[in-house]
Amino acid sequence: MSSYRKRIAILGATGYGGSELLRFLLFHPNVEVVRATSRQHPGKPVHTVHPHLLKVTELCFEDVSPEEAAEGVDLVFSALPHGASQDSVRRLPASVKAIDLSGDFRLKDPAVYRDVYGHEHNAPEQLGQFVYGLTEFNRRAIAPARRVANPGCFATAALLALLPLAHAGTLDGPVALVGVTGSSGSGAEPKSGTHHPERAEAFRAYKPLVHQHLPEICQELSRAGAPEARVAFVPHSAPMVRGIHITAILHPKEPLSLETVRSIYHSHYGDERFVRLRNEPPDVAVVAGSNFADLHCRSDGRTLVVLVALDNLVKGMVGQAIQNMNLMLGLPEHAGLQFPGTRP
Amino acid sequence: MSSYRKRIAILGATGYGGSELLRFLLFHPNVEVVRATSRQHPGKPVHTVHPHLLKVTELCFEDVSPEEAAEGVDLVFSALPHGASQDSVRRLPASVKAIDLSGDFRLKDPAVYRDVYGHEHNAPEQLGQFVYGLTEFNRRAIAPARRVANPGCFATAALLALLPLAHAGTLDGPVALVGVTGSSGSGAEPKSGTHHPERAEAFRAYKPLVHQHLPEICQELSRAGAPEARVAFVPHSAPMVRGIHITAILHPKEPLSLETVRSIYHSHYGDERFVRLRNEPPDVAVVAGSNFADLHCRSDGRTLVVLVALDNLVKGMVGQAIQNMNLMLGLPEHAGLQFPGTRP
Amino acid sequence: MSSYRKRIAILGATGYGGSELLRFLLFHPNVEVVRATSRQHPGKPVHTVHPHLLKVTELCFEDVSPEEAAEGVDLVFSALPHGASQDSVRRLPASVKAIDLSGDFRLKDPAVYRDVYGHEHNAPEQLGQFVYGLTEFNRRAIAPARRVANPGCFATAALLALLPLAHAGTLDGPVALVGVTGSSGSGAEPKSGTHHPERAEAFRAYKPLVHQHLPEICQELSRAGAPEARVAFVPHSAPMVRGIHITAILHPKEPLSLETVRSIYHSHYGDERFVRLRNEPPDVAVVAGSNFADLHCRSDGRTLVVLVALDNLVKGMVGQAIQNMNLMLGLPEHAGLQFPGTRP
Amino acid sequence: MSSYRKRIAILGATGYGGSELLRFLLFHPNVEVVRATSRQHPGKPVHTVHPHLLKVTELCFEDVSPEEAAEGVDLVFSALPHGASQDSVRRLPASVKAIDLSGDFRLKDPAVYRDVYGHEHNAPEQLGQFVYGLTEFNRRAIAPARRVANPGCFATAALLALLPLAHAGTLDGPVALVGVTGSSGSGAEPKSGTHHPERAEAFRAYKPLVHQHLPEICQELSRAGAPEARVAFVPHSAPMVRGIHITAILHPKEPLSLETVRSIYHSHYGDERFVRLRNEPPDVAVVAGSNFADLHCRSDGRTLVVLVALDNLVKGMVGQAIQNMNLMLGLPEHAGLQFPGTRP
Repeated sequence: MSSYRKRIAILGATGYGGSELLRFLLFHPNVEVVRATSRQHPGKPVHTVHPHLLKVTELCFEDVSPEEAAEGVDLVFSALPHGASQDSVRRLPASVKAIDLSGDFRLKDPAVYRDVYGHEHNAPEQLGQFVYGLTEFNRRAIAPARRVANPGCFATAALLALLPLAHAGTLDGPVALVGVTGSSGSGAEPKSGTHHPERAEAFRAYKPLVHQHLPEICQELSRAGAPEARVAFVPHSAPMVRGIHITAILHPKEPLSLETVRSIYHSHYGDERFVRLRNEPPDVAVVAGSNFADLHCRSDGRTLVVLVALDNLVKGMVGQAIQNMNLMLGLPEHAGLQFPGTRP
Repeated sequence: MSSYRKRIAILGATGYGGSELLRFLLFHPNVEVVRATSRQHPGKPVHTVHPHLLKVTELCFEDVSPEEAAEGVDLVFSALPHGASQDSVRRLPASVKAIDLSGDFRLKDPAVYRDVYGHEHNAPEQLGQFVYGLTEFNRRAIAPARRVANPGCFATAALLALLPLAHAGTLDGPVALVGVTGSSGSGAEPKSGTHHPERAEAFRAYKPLVHQHLPEICQELSRAGAPEARVAFVPHSAPMVRGIHITAILHPKEPLSLETVRSIYHSHYGDERFVRLRNEPPDVAVVAGSNFADLHCRSDGRTLVVLVALDNLVKGMVGQAIQNMNLMLGLPEHAGLQFPGTRP
Repeated sequence: MSSYRKRIAILGATGYGGSELLRFLLFHPNVEVVRATSRQHPGKPVHTVHPHLLKVTELCFEDVSPEEAAEGVDLVFSALPHGASQDSVRRLPASVKAIDLSGDFRLKDPAVYRDVYGHEHNAPEQLGQFVYGLTEFNRRAIAPARRVANPGCFATAALLALLPLAHAGTLDGPVALVGVTGSSGSGAEPKSGTHHPERAEAFRAYKPLVHQHLPEICQELSRAGAPEARVAFVPHSAPMVRGIHITAILHPKEPLSLETVRSIYHSHYGDERFVRLRNEPPDVAVVAGSNFADLHCRSDGRTLVVLVALDNLVKGMVGQAIQNMNLMLGLPEHAGLQFPGTRP
Repeated sequence: MSSYRKRIAILGATGYGGSELLRFLLFHPNVEVVRATSRQHPGKPVHTVHPHLLKVTELCFEDVSPEEAAEGVDLVFSALPHGASQDSVRRLPASVKAIDLSGDFRLKDPAVYRDVYGHEHNAPEQLGQFVYGLTEFNRRAIAPARRVANPGCFATAALLALLPLAHAGTLDGPVALVGVTGSSGSGAEPKSGTHHPERAEAFRAYKPLVHQHLPEICQELSRAGAPEARVAFVPHSAPMVRGIHITAILHPKEPLSLETVRSIYHSHYGDERFVRLRNEPPDVAVVAGSNFADLHCRSDGRTLVVLVALDNLVKGMVGQAIQNMNLMLGLPEHAGLQFPGTRP
């Protein structure tokens, strides 16, 4: 690798996605963040919005068009909100590589998109150009891609749990999928659901059976040979800041021994750098801040339980995006991502 | 009702069960706590262990035998730990009513008890005398009972979710049961699982498929006509202090419309004082401190989701025990339990 | 006392002040809440805004004028926001008693009010009618009053710490006052300072030396004979929901022995129902949900430390207001306030 | 710098000090951790105790003597508990450099040590060999030192606040010092003070006026020319995991303008890499996980307020220790410490 640093731009760098991209990319050995856009804070140092970056970087926000942001850069991240991202990403020159963190380009079918998000897609003709960026399963397609749609946080955890079973042809019974998220998944804008006095001791489900990540999960299970998988997904809010936890409870038609299940997961993840098979149920506190996804499975013969924990902002968003960036730019996949998290 | 106050004793009053019993009973209009036992703190005012009770009561702990504790009282609560409780409760005179908060007398079958708790029961001959104290379903048996085994916190929430379906004969498909508990469920003794630096942002499963409340749940479902119910239970720890949340995901053989399901729950709980049917997913923060169990259900036709939230120390333990006490002493079932909780 | 229940109205009942007033007053043995106003939610049951009150009360919000709200009632609480409260309270008929929870009528001097709050007072001629409702020190003036301005939460804790010293003439050196508040003090509206992802692990000062409760504190110290007290006040936000904690560090000109200091506090609070002198530093978790203020003092001869913990929404707001209501309506001062809080 | 990596050993690597040393040193470009000792877990991979380090390092704990641990290494960190550390550190060969994280070698005077810690020091003759490792003020002594006593977390924050004033000769009035710590300061062993159900919403003072870091603070203020400083220190526990916050309230004899104060701090910290002067009160959530100390000051002319926030485990312990290690080994002071923390 030459000492040349690849040049990166970030669209919409004031939210938590932008904050985490900066945290990792400012210390990435092979890239340089040359631009961070913000409509609301043009000209201001990024530390005015992200106070932990004072004395870490001199970078300032710029209010420039997507086309201008992409000038002279190797890869653009869009950390713009769902719905807004497509308007910017569609305008990026084809010559510039791009990774979209939003939900805008994950679903292949514009009709499904409309059903899920409640409005027409603005660039349906571009949907086909996007590779679904679940790194561990789509590496070969991601590396040469010019456009990557980064998976949703729940979808990442759910697919890491279920795809090995789909590939093994064992996803034939009903799948109960219970997800739990920390409050940072709601983004940087205060809202009633993240009001500290009411969130600090709250645990509650939301959007039971109708969360927008479910079609994403089903689309990818279908591609993996399990189009008939019956997945019921119920997400919950827990009173923590970071973390996604998935509990999958499966009732396969044929009994699956624990040894069989473990060997399925071992064959997929034994050599993975960022997926860890644990001997005990995983804990979101152990992966917080890091790009690791921890997985554990149990079986009593007829019922199978798969547990996954990851950091929604890292492995569930920015960390996975940087894995993808590394692949797309010909860098080592793990570059800049070794941080083990802070525990406690 | 006469102005005579029923006399109550509490065995093992230094833990959270004791603390909550005192919180409610000291302000109960019809009873008087005359004795609170502790082996470790004899003679000390209860506020030395429960500092919030300073200037609330002059009561002191006593180190007396169960027999002595029961002298002259109408009803004894045992808030002793699992395993230890049976040794004391078995010695109580038959003439004194008793409610055991531990898991010692919930299972009818000593063989199941041994399997679940890993040791022989010390008073297997007494198991048959105990009524399972799930108030909303066992009132008629509880009122005349001399011995009540108070249900476990997870079991209470799970059974409130599932028993109406069992009675309706619709519990014929696999049931995925995901439970979540706050840290107070671990009791008043510090342990590694409740060490604040590691618990404050933790979410993790424990005892997947093998939690000791599952046999209790199955026993009661069986009694309700669903002996074949296939229940998989995975409990989790969440970083909150109080609360049990149950997410039940069911795949019934025959599709169940949302209207049907709602009418099933309405017929059971419409007139209940402490079970509330909500229009939105329940939140443990909303029931914390109170004796309410909040329930909500969803269905997309083929999959059914039932959500229950309650306070593990109140409706899941002490509050339900006081409902039972009220019934056993001929008092209004809700007496002393109206407190709506503190929110936020 | 007759069985007649006093009739109470609450102006602005949708915030945390309204919520807590309902929590206490709905179970108060001598009063009845007959009206709760809200401009935004007219006609809706109060449980739509305060979900913990479902099945607790049938009361609905009304959008009525202050004059209409006051019709036929014995006492009106205003839980309206600072600044807005004065517009409603000024219109209340003189014949109806009123307690204002806001900061609008606490300061006697309209010029000080303008300096502190940045705008002219709308009813400066009424300021003189208000008694400062610090119950333990102003009972004799509160009982016959028709108008009471309820103290601020920080001011309540600070004055409970300092007034005994002021009366003893020992407040002659510099006083460093460090306050800490939970997030519920920010009210029910989401804002950036209470956004869970950023508040959950935050500790920070705000408004150092210029918080609006300081003039209130100084006004009352002055009335207690310490007009020259040099008080520096620095409030902080801590990642908890409920609680005010005050640490007062004093350097009196004459050395004060611990015995002297203790006897000063004992003479003031030994017989108080809601102020508890503790042998150890107080803990906000121990008073949360209750009307208790816990106090502890230390001295090494030359430096004196006084620590106070209370619940900002109870003893620092609604609980103290109900103490005052009880006095104004001729009821026992502690009626309806015995709840010891929930711990843990 | 050559590509040779300096060799490091850690004594007592199972606690939070060990965990944080590993987090930083495993990614430090110029050093290699060759040994991590543990009496309890010999032979086990470090990830069995520090689960976040699975797939991060293959290192295993060793149960070796201090002398053996020091063989062939360039520098030894002792992360052993207070009191136990001195027994191991005294046995290290003089030829090996060492940094002690405990309180054992911070106080120069064995008599003061005995008063503070309640027992005789085991190696009083070695006390004189230790340099007090407050990096920003003692660099010139630290760089050539063979023994460094790393400052306490509260002492670090307090001294960063006060030493510039001491050097400026303005520390002539009473100083009220209020400290706040997160729960990780209590270490990795569960205890009643860190029991989640009771700590999660607690705020309370402890050891008012008698905390063991005060003599350390006074010793260093004295060395900086302020032997007569009258410092009263009251530490508190807050319900967060990481963080130290110091609020210093000073009443200098001569009025100090805000400009004067700011210029004092600017001259000390303007060019410091890890001390940041902020325009607003600092927040522990903003420095959590990082080696930064954030500082802000206010003055109303007669009263001066200085606020400092840092991470107790990083700038208050391990991060500062690595700054010192870098100096002692001739490495860039900031090497391996650039991590900006995770926010939110």
